[in-house]
Amino acid sequence: MALVNRSLVTIDDLSNGEIEALFSLADEMTDSMSEQFTLCQGKVLASLFFEPSTRTRLSFETAMHRLGGSVVSVADAKATSLAKGESIADMARVVGSYADIIVIRHPWEGAAKVVADYAGVPVINAGDGGHEHPTQTLCDLYTIVKERQAIRGLRIALWGDLKHGRTVHSLAYALARFGATILFHPGQGLEMPEHVIRKLTTEYGGELRRFEAVDAGGGGLFPLDAIYMTPSQPHQLAMMPDVSVQVELEMGVDALYVTRLQQERLSDNADDEGVKESYPVVDKKLLNEKEFERTMVMHPLPRVGELAYDLDADPRSMYFKQAARGVPVRMALIALLLGVKEVSSPEEDDWKHDYPVYCGGLGVRCRNPKCVSIQDTEVKYIKHQFQIVGNQPLTLRCIYCEHEIYPPYIASSDWHDGTLESKKYHSANSHWARDIKPENLIAFDTRDEAESHGFKPSHFVRNNC
Amino acid sequence: MALVNRSLVTIDDLSNGEIEALFSLADEMTDSMSEQFTLCQGKVLASLFFEPSTRTRLSFETAMHRLGGSVVSVADAKATSLAKGESIADMARVVGSYADIIVIRHPWEGAAKVVADYAGVPVINAGDGGHEHPTQTLCDLYTIVKERQAIRGLRIALWGDLKHGRTVHSLAYALARFGATILFHPGQGLEMPEHVIRKLTTEYGGELRRFEAVDAGGGGLFPLDAIYMTPSQPHQLAMMPDVSVQVELEMGVDALYVTRLQQERLSDNADDEGVKESYPVVDKKLLNEKEFERTMVMHPLPRVGELAYDLDADPRSMYFKQAARGVPVRMALIALLLGVKEVSSPEEDDWKHDYPVYCGGLGVRCRNPKCVSIQDTEVKYIKHQFQIVGNQPLTLRCIYCEHEIYPPYIASSDWHDGTLESKKYHSANSHWARDIKPENLIAFDTRDEAESHGFKPSHFVRNNC
Amino acid sequence: MALVNRSLVTIDDLSNGEIEALFSLADEMTDSMSEQFTLCQGKVLASLFFEPSTRTRLSFETAMHRLGGSVVSVADAKATSLAKGESIADMARVVGSYADIIVIRHPWEGAAKVVADYAGVPVINAGDGGHEHPTQTLCDLYTIVKERQAIRGLRIALWGDLKHGRTVHSLAYALARFGATILFHPGQGLEMPEHVIRKLTTEYGGELRRFEAVDAGGGGLFPLDAIYMTPSQPHQLAMMPDVSVQVELEMGVDALYVTRLQQERLSDNADDEGVKESYPVVDKKLLNEKEFERTMVMHPLPRVGELAYDLDADPRSMYFKQAARGVPVRMALIALLLGVKEVSSPEEDDWKHDYPVYCGGLGVRCRNPKCVSIQDTEVKYIKHQFQIVGNQPLTLRCIYCEHEIYPPYIASSDWHDGTLESKKYHSANSHWARDIKPENLIAFDTRDEAESHGFKPSHFVRNNC
Repeated sequence: MALVNRSLVTIDDLSNGEIEALFSLADEMTDSMSEQFTLCQGKVLASLFFEPSTRTRLSFETAMHRLGGSVVSVADAKATSLAKGESIADMARVVGSYADIIVIRHPWEGAAKVVADYAGVPVINAGDGGHEHPTQTLCDLYTIVKERQAIRGLRIALWGDLKHGRTVHSLAYALARFGATILFHPGQGLEMPEHVIRKLTTEYGGELRRFEAVDAGGGGLFPLDAIYMTPSQPHQLAMMPDVSVQVELEMGVDALYVTRLQQERLSDNADDEGVKESYPVVDKKLLNEKEFERTMVMHPLPRVGELAYDLDADPRSMYFKQAARGVPVRMALIALLLGVKEVSSPEEDDWKHDYPVYCGGLGVRCRNPKCVSIQDTEVKYIKHQFQIVGNQPLTLRCIYCEHEIYPPYIASSDWHDGTLESKKYHSANSHWARDIKPENLIAFDTRDEAESHGFKPSHFVRNNC
Repeated sequence: MALVNRSLVTIDDLSNGEIEALFSLADEMTDSMSEQFTLCQGKVLASLFFEPSTRTRLSFETAMHRLGGSVVSVADAKATSLAKGESIADMARVVGSYADIIVIRHPWEGAAKVVADYAGVPVINAGDGGHEHPTQTLCDLYTIVKERQAIRGLRIALWGDLKHGRTVHSLAYALARFGATILFHPGQGLEMPEHVIRKLTTEYGGELRRFEAVDAGGGGLFPLDAIYMTPSQPHQLAMMPDVSVQVELEMGVDALYVTRLQQERLSDNADDEGVKESYPVVDKKLLNEKEFERTMVMHPLPRVGELAYDLDADPRSMYFKQAARGVPVRMALIALLLGVKEVSSPEEDDWKHDYPVYCGGLGVRCRNPKCVSIQDTEVKYIKHQFQIVGNQPLTLRCIYCEHEIYPPYIASSDWHDGTLESKKYHSANSHWARDIKPENLIAFDTRDEAESHGFKPSHFVRNNC
Repeated sequence: MALVNRSLVTIDDLSNGEIEALFSLADEMTDSMSEQFTLCQGKVLASLFFEPSTRTRLSFETAMHRLGGSVVSVADAKATSLAKGESIADMARVVGSYADIIVIRHPWEGAAKVVADYAGVPVINAGDGGHEHPTQTLCDLYTIVKERQAIRGLRIALWGDLKHGRTVHSLAYALARFGATILFHPGQGLEMPEHVIRKLTTEYGGELRRFEAVDAGGGGLFPLDAIYMTPSQPHQLAMMPDVSVQVELEMGVDALYVTRLQQERLSDNADDEGVKESYPVVDKKLLNEKEFERTMVMHPLPRVGELAYDLDADPRSMYFKQAARGVPVRMALIALLLGVKEVSSPEEDDWKHDYPVYCGGLGVRCRNPKCVSIQDTEVKYIKHQFQIVGNQPLTLRCIYCEHEIYPPYIASSDWHDGTLESKKYHSANSHWARDIKPENLIAFDTRDEAESHGFKPSHFVRNNC
């Protein structure tokens, strides 16, 4: 499938084959960086940044300039018509009628999808709240590939703020798809969100094993919270007692991916002080441990205190290389989406799922307060939609922010004979969750909601009141 | 007259013929958009936005890039030397010595004229407070012309915030000039300002008829506050009783131009809540009325609540087309002002007036608090000037913001024999207002002011004390 | 020495010969401005402005565009990753891996040097706090040279805020190097800082004479605080009684360089009101004095109240010409640093000093609160270094902000036999300041500090307790 005119909202919008083809083109860009300045001549990229950024914005804009294209730029949310109460969809339609391609960063999760839905031109997600940041993931993967040739079988540790760090979410998905083993070491209270874990295990088929006691890191081993292994290896994991995991780890960590504490996304709790104090720090001393002998130290930057300056001159440090590679990777991506370069069409990946879609007819809404779909300016036009990713219990994944909800009551729009008597609602835990056809499904958050639409409780619901 | 090196501060800076020629060039730009990227190579446009904007700024910058030119940009008033107390004139002279053309948006009314006076390069007004926004008007007119071939004789309704909406001021002038009938439906307390109405009727020669009772919109007809007809039709208006106007309207509205409530320009009055609640909303239901059967729905965007999303897919909706056409229209304008394209020189319009100018010698100042001419940083150098647009009573129109003042007292600088005894001042309502030659006119706001300059009251003034 | 790949942090980074060669290239740029737009094709300039600016930023960006290059721009400190706590060094490394050249303005003094140390590409200082603004100085010098052919022997008066005005610091150094006589007329309490005066006299070898009584400006002569004469003339100064200085001045002032009061850098003292009121104003009346008959009036802009608008049309006014010349001067500079143009290599200047460097081992830190080296985000990696510019008393000049400190105690790291008994510390006023080799020098701010590192007081220190 050609990449021209497509958008990149989540890393899953690209197949493994497409990512590999993109990396080949990035190599080409690196090798002849100064000769590309006519490739996008006459094309305009709109760079819309509604959250602070230096590196990502400048990296995209530099990439477009090195391709010979032009850039129009919004670097401050307050100076735009969004400040006048305009919706994202309107903004997308207008900017899409000016520019040939749009790059968007926005604090609302799912905002990039809305822009992609309405712009009419290719859209690249440069970070939407805590959701995804797929081009950072491309730079991360590209760095691993350049240094280690392949990703399959590598042991990659993710450290720090795994809760708010959108870069580690996208990265974890991609690592799972490419067959890496992932070692989780979150800061205190900063574990991977449940929906990310679920997506990892249900979508890409791997397995997760949590540890309670090992995270103290006794015996010189590095602290660990959980381990994820991809489909090719789960049998190993199943057979592996906690101690053996440590033995496995002694074989060495291939990459240590450190993230900063996203303080701007913390609440104002008293506990936050504890979070900051216990946040893991990576420094020269830690890197002296045997399992880090050949470890690449990676970081999406900016760093604050979690990555010591004494590592900067260490040959294992990759973070400035990661940043520098952002330009050729983004050049390749822009060139492909604009169709000025093409890659041969690799086949689709087998991990892709086609979940049925629930259109949220009678009231169920995403519960993520940062989801684009529930914001005041957006509710007027947005289509509330969810992927039905599980039915025991019924699990709906918002198509915008990918957070999951579990509505407790369900009904069918295809009731018997169309008579009111047969309009019953059921518990979402009951067999009905499997039996109602997705196209007929209606979900409710409360009994009142169901009854206000004329539905009556089924026997089961009544008996469990 | 060639357009090269001229500025566009108000829509009246272009003749009807020039506007039509510009539209032909915009057609050309649309047809071969991707082939223009060498036209302005080596030229630099300075894009100075001292008020929030996405679409206008990005539209201008995209236009310059599509012409192959470069852009330097200011998108935030606070980050500039104006924050250090610099005058607009100084800023204009400096930026004019860097760039080949300047686009300016500023909250002060008349600011664009000051920039044009001092920059030494062509200047385009991208909105100066509540005054004008002529390129928006060009996009509006261009859309009407593209959809209906000509403007003369069309019935165009202006809805919403007619008070603060600078786009509707510029548009009303242009519609009058091109011979359209204008139907006014303002929000509560948001009527067209008096000076705009006066300019419409005195400058372009049409006639205005107000309605008291019809605005309730009985009988399915759309609400109406006033109607304006251009010189070709005023006899119709004169002969037309209120009821016939309704009959006329039943023939259908050609365009419904909706504007958003400019909340940022409202005062903090308690009444404002009422203004918001009673603000007219245009939606699918309204458009079902017979008189809107073939109506183009137009809006300068951004919209807030006054234009429903259910119209977006309606073929009568023109607002996204309006926005998209901003790029070719602005490409054409920039190309003409920079002289890289030329149009044949059409003759001057006959509606242009050459009013005598009053230079404000002894103290009369514009009373518009948002006029550039009375701001602290500008008074040090500004030339206070007014067009003498009426003399019964004496009516002075500020050359910067076009607001009007009516100074109550006048005198002549050419007093008899140059003796103090003959230095008299008169009521501005007296015959003297006609008799004193404009070049000798002195106006005063108060008797004290007149007397402090050594003038004594005339018989008439004394008798009316 | 070729200019390619070098940085411009202070005006002293360029030799006199290099400045003259750069001016020749600026002439060339002026003469064929519109033909340079392929020179930097494919190159990217990063324009990083962390303080308000219009003219400097737009001037640099225009210069790059006129050379055919591209620009990525940061115009607002709050919208960047520095807001997330990132260090300047990290930012420099990342942006340096994207762009071919960096222009930086930052409120911290010495910030540009840090960027130059870490970026790996040429860096141009566009103003670092109150420290330097070397390209403004180039524009100033270029204007003088264009109008008077040479600088040597000219009498140039510096007026106004000589304390905070970074432009007058850089300019004073350059004027001294090129052999001009400098006349100082500071606003009340706004005298040249001591470290600037010291650098003028010790570095460039001229002499300064202060006046107590002459500043009243009796007899129509212009007010004066001090006069500086370069090495070629100091004998004149030595022989000149106060009265003769006035006679000398009657020969006329060649340039009057006026600066605005940098209110944003004033403290909130009550005295500040007095500062504002007594601030000198340059206007047409002053310029009527005989000694200003042929005086160029110069100003780095923006002006506020210190330079009257009635001078704008005066042929002696140079300030708008200064601004306009910023573009060709910066074009020449960028072209040379990027190596797309070359100048023949003039010999080094003889005024350059090679001071020994003190590396601040055991605790001495710069005391300038605005110095980059002591900021929270920077201390983690910064190398505290000082030039040893004097030893009676010991005078250390911070290599970042060039402020000077005078640590009262010193010791040698090369103590006798390495035994603790011989670890003595001495007064920095004693002969030891000369005797200890620079590479062995240790300086202390307090006795406690010295003793906490195991040093004991010498006889002299003990006796003076």
